[in-house]
Amino acid sequence: MEMPSPDPSVIERKARVVARLLEVLPGDAVIHDEHETRAYECDALTAYKCPPMIAVLPATTEEVAAVLRICHAEGVPVVPRGSGTSLAGGALPTADCVLLGVARMNDVLETDYDNRFIRVQSGRTNLSVTGAVEEDGFFYAPDPSSQLACAIAGNIAMNSGGAHCLKYGVTTNNLMGVTLVTMEGEVLEIGGPYLDSGGLDLLGLICGSEGQLGVVTEATLRILPKPEGARPVLIGFDDNAVAGACVSDIIKAGVLPVAIEFMDRICIETTEAFAQAGYPMCEALLIVEVEGSEAEIDAQLALIVEIARRHDPVEVRESRSTEESARIWLGRKSAFGAMGQISDYMCLDGTIPVSALPEVLRRIGEMSRDFGLRVGNVFHAGDGNMHPLILFDANKPGDLELCEAFGAEILKLCVEAGGCLTGEHGVGIEKRDLMGVQYGADDLEVQMAVKDVFDPHWLLNPAKVFPLAASEDRRAAALAAE
Amino acid sequence: MEMPSPDPSVIERKARVVARLLEVLPGDAVIHDEHETRAYECDALTAYKCPPMIAVLPATTEEVAAVLRICHAEGVPVVPRGSGTSLAGGALPTADCVLLGVARMNDVLETDYDNRFIRVQSGRTNLSVTGAVEEDGFFYAPDPSSQLACAIAGNIAMNSGGAHCLKYGVTTNNLMGVTLVTMEGEVLEIGGPYLDSGGLDLLGLICGSEGQLGVVTEATLRILPKPEGARPVLIGFDDNAVAGACVSDIIKAGVLPVAIEFMDRICIETTEAFAQAGYPMCEALLIVEVEGSEAEIDAQLALIVEIARRHDPVEVRESRSTEESARIWLGRKSAFGAMGQISDYMCLDGTIPVSALPEVLRRIGEMSRDFGLRVGNVFHAGDGNMHPLILFDANKPGDLELCEAFGAEILKLCVEAGGCLTGEHGVGIEKRDLMGVQYGADDLEVQMAVKDVFDPHWLLNPAKVFPLAASEDRRAAALAAE
Repeated sequence: MEMPSPDPSVIERKARVVARLLEVLPGDAVIHDEHETRAYECDALTAYKCPPMIAVLPATTEEVAAVLRICHAEGVPVVPRGSGTSLAGGALPTADCVLLGVARMNDVLETDYDNRFIRVQSGRTNLSVTGAVEEDGFFYAPDPSSQLACAIAGNIAMNSGGAHCLKYGVTTNNLMGVTLVTMEGEVLEIGGPYLDSGGLDLLGLICGSEGQLGVVTEATLRILPKPEGARPVLIGFDDNAVAGACVSDIIKAGVLPVAIEFMDRICIETTEAFAQAGYPMCEALLIVEVEGSEAEIDAQLALIVEIARRHDPVEVRESRSTEESARIWLGRKSAFGAMGQISDYMCLDGTIPVSALPEVLRRIGEMSRDFGLRVGNVFHAGDGNMHPLILFDANKPGDLELCEAFGAEILKLCVEAGGCLTGEHGVGIEKRDLMGVQYGADDLEVQMAVKDVFDPHWLLNPAKVFPLAASEDRRAAALAAE
Repeated sequence: MEMPSPDPSVIERKARVVARLLEVLPGDAVIHDEHETRAYECDALTAYKCPPMIAVLPATTEEVAAVLRICHAEGVPVVPRGSGTSLAGGALPTADCVLLGVARMNDVLETDYDNRFIRVQSGRTNLSVTGAVEEDGFFYAPDPSSQLACAIAGNIAMNSGGAHCLKYGVTTNNLMGVTLVTMEGEVLEIGGPYLDSGGLDLLGLICGSEGQLGVVTEATLRILPKPEGARPVLIGFDDNAVAGACVSDIIKAGVLPVAIEFMDRICIETTEAFAQAGYPMCEALLIVEVEGSEAEIDAQLALIVEIARRHDPVEVRESRSTEESARIWLGRKSAFGAMGQISDYMCLDGTIPVSALPEVLRRIGEMSRDFGLRVGNVFHAGDGNMHPLILFDANKPGDLELCEAFGAEILKLCVEAGGCLTGEHGVGIEKRDLMGVQYGADDLEVQMAVKDVFDPHWLLNPAKVFPLAASEDRRAAALAAE
């Protein structure tokens, strides 16, 4: 592929930064060849691509601090990257940036079963955190769909959730401490393996801050004893709104399932064709999983089935064995892949009060007809975290833009319904210009002023989270003040 | 009581501020008579007292905003106050301040059982939040000992816990949103009845910020369905360290009690003399409570008793009825009152990893002999939140100072053991000068820079949380920059 010839001052600047980075990192940790940097040109929001100027792969907190000191001194923007699984463009590079990947930082630093925590380097994948403790009967609760690949660094940046977060909470509920390196290269220890924090709770602020405040290099995570067992029940309905009402009633009854997953007809049909999980063909399907001893599971499932029967289900299939459980989950776990087989899609991520589910699903159906684009719904219903998948054709001119416009309307609808324009994927570049739908100018000003504290020159993960014009103004003002 | 005559410029300033406050508040909401302001001279850390210049009792968010705008314009410091139950001096006035009490703001604004939340004005007491929903089968989980009196505003300011927080988490885990008024009188809506926040998670930052960032006027709180039942087991040991090891083993075994409370010999003896709860005389006593159906309770208690028996308990008394449960809790709930009958005491609040309990208890015993002051230990053992009570004689010259020096050593010990110098009481004025034990200069600088964003003139709840010299420097710099 032919590259455009960059301006000589850009070449000179790049050469100088590469030389300085090579003083603090081994040669194979500094990637500057234009073909090799392409490996980092996008994350899982693949509609947007841009190779970074340079990519670095430090192995320790000290190396991260050295990289950030150099970039700070040179005024080079830094884009932190976990495993690049962001669906919101959270790790999308800019052409003038150093992409800082934490993939080599995957060690377990400490496990402490008495106090139920594990301390890891932040590049460790989500599933391998559980992998490090499961032989001893423990697990790490947050379980994003991408858990085989996604890094703890990205989980912290996005405050990631997952199917089991209804019971166990999202990342912020399972994070006890971090080592954070600021853009100036200062190393801060925030939180730790104890209950509270003295003074301001910066840990809560860091979690979900999308790489805007610093680079997390190490994390102390809560680990939990594995439950004795778990079994789901699958419940089919001939109406979306009725399924939504059933979710609401389960939550209200005080039984606390680990997961309540929802799929609509388009997802059921597509998944069934792909994975043959034996799902009933109906309008809406719930998978409700409970945990505990056999007796506890039986008691909880009995109550859930009783509630479901009040809503005229077309099918109720209670799992009685590990095999039956696996078969019930098979379809749900294949859903995103199956949808990807039939169409390009954009996966949205909004959160609403659970009681608003029936109405929001109805209005998404109406909008789908108005925009002329199909929508599949497969999501974590128990905590109101929706993932509408808008189907489009990437090769049809104008379809992506139409899809984005439709997506924006759905997220506005979530906010109108008393919800939030993001659940577990973050704002990234995808939703930056929708932030004004959720927040007034005063609210955004406070958020940006907090960023000023940690990153006064607006060099960290630029042009994300905040409306583009606002962050560009902020960056220009910082440059002018220098 | 005779008052000192203040300087005429102070009188004039006070008259001007009172006049302006009377423009925005009804007459009975502005308290400026020197005898009446004495009602607000201290909170529950009664060793420190100072009447405010003026006290105000606004009834709405709008009135709070109007008060703050006036104080901001006049450069008058503001000390927010919930119910004044802080044990760390969090609501201690300064002589030149407007004390802003939220006691009149106690309405329920909204209850939503489908989405399991309640929205209240922040002056509502903790227990009356549960009171508003318990007939419908719900409760609000965090339960500080002062729950009959303490306000949600103070719970949020201190990120309060309580005996049942082992299972349900502390305030930050049960808070969904707040209305916050900044020192400049801006009204911010932060969070809400949904899962995530777009952009920076300011809610996590606000919770536990001890009135340093703004005044919380309304709060959206998670409510939970009441469990079917609950029963405790009382376990006595002839050794503190063995009781500590038993706590560690219960936690490690994966059973999740709602509470694990610990009392040592001095507290057991004193409480027994006061409340006649029928406790065994021994070195250490645990009360472990579990929840659920009768079958679940039986199964969990059986496991806990089995673990306890491995540690040679001198007594195991499992509750079989509501009456037996009440009797087991009676002593624990009377413990602070009972200790107050025999001596003045200072109640500390540090947090340590659970596995450090035996060693920390042993070292507190050694220090007690070195300082010549007795210590009682009664605390939430399950989450490592210690409350050593140092006994002293307020009428004996030098005893309070000795007690404070001893307390500082205990909190340093908590930090050395891998813990934190505060659990649920906050830093306030009590621990401000110990913040340097926990944090380096860089860490504190970041925390103070975050305060700069919300309160650039350092007018809100002055001289607390941060080391006194550092906050005075900051305030002086802000004044010089004007």
